[in-house]
Amino acid sequence: MSSALSPQLDELVEALRRLPGVGAKTGQRMALHLLQRDRDGARRLAAALTRAADTVGECPECGLLTEQPRCGICASAERERSLLCLVESTADVAALEQATDYRGRYFVLGGHLSPLDGIGPEELGLDRLERRLDSGEISEIILATNPTVEGEATAHYVSEMAAARGVRTTRIAHGVPMGGALEQVDQGTLSHAFMGRRDYEG
Amino acid sequence: MSSALSPQLDELVEALRRLPGVGAKTGQRMALHLLQRDRDGARRLAAALTRAADTVGECPECGLLTEQPRCGICASAERERSLLCLVESTADVAALEQATDYRGRYFVLGGHLSPLDGIGPEELGLDRLERRLDSGEISEIILATNPTVEGEATAHYVSEMAAARGVRTTRIAHGVPMGGALEQVDQGTLSHAFMGRRDYEG
Repeated sequence: MSSALSPQLDELVEALRRLPGVGAKTGQRMALHLLQRDRDGARRLAAALTRAADTVGECPECGLLTEQPRCGICASAERERSLLCLVESTADVAALEQATDYRGRYFVLGGHLSPLDGIGPEELGLDRLERRLDSGEISEIILATNPTVEGEATAHYVSEMAAARGVRTTRIAHGVPMGGALEQVDQGTLSHAFMGRRDYEG
Repeated sequence: MSSALSPQLDELVEALRRLPGVGAKTGQRMALHLLQRDRDGARRLAAALTRAADTVGECPECGLLTEQPRCGICASAERERSLLCLVESTADVAALEQATDYRGRYFVLGGHLSPLDGIGPEELGLDRLERRLDSGEISEIILATNPTVEGEATAHYVSEMAAARGVRTTRIAHGVPMGGALEQVDQGTLSHAFMGRRDYEG
């Protein structure tokens, strides 16, 4: 959109481009849609953004995004304190909550170890995790970081921390996705699945 | 995102889903990105949305979105009054302004004739266009509606309106896109390009 047309529209397109996956074309399409056909949607989005930016913070126990003093999972008496699932982000918690009937708690790192970017154990709150392991209330820590180089390194770091305190450590399984065709799976996954084969139990 | 986690986050995801092309997964990714990594972007987007929704309206002459009493093109003394280009939306104007050095003015319909949806000539402001044709200031009207059934019907309707007043009517060319391979062009376009062939001028 040439800025000669409407500076306000340009500004809205620029602001929309801060959203992940939104470029110039998509931003323009979104801005025009809102202004031409859904002003109510524009105002509602503005209000939701302001409210969320003002009120949503991180749960001091697990790091999950929440507008409460503690997140719903940490505040719930029904979630076991002895099981802790380590994930990289709030989105991972949402995915696990939808897919599994896990009844333990989470620890949200908000990223993974990445020394080159200056992200070490402290930046991820791993000192906080260490104190929880020291307290003796955790019996199993489930490593659910992503199967990337950084995610694996983070899982390894935490597993050593847990081993030093005699806490059982498990890693979620990686391999050929259910329903996936072998021939369509990438080599790395297939190699991992082959090496990680288990005794067949019928 | 299970609503047990954060109602404010859910509400933000719902509001983002009003954007075209944004579903549950993308909306969640956008919301988490803004809250975890770009709160400043969230506030800036909220402000831009509110300002644009409050101030941007349609140019009373051409229908283009603008926050001025008249749009920059209609207000410019350098744009010829005798040339009028008919388009369906503000996005089309932006595309034409970027791609061409057209120095005339526009008429933005905000859609196309679609009797089944109750969109007739009045809803598109074609009565306003008729008065401009009556005034005698227009020497050529360039039909740049989309090459869809409705866009063609709209172009045809306006061409008859112009013909009745002796105004020259042209239609932008449709055919094989520049740089496109014949074998990859759809049948309708290829058939149109073949029937619309012209004498070769070297």
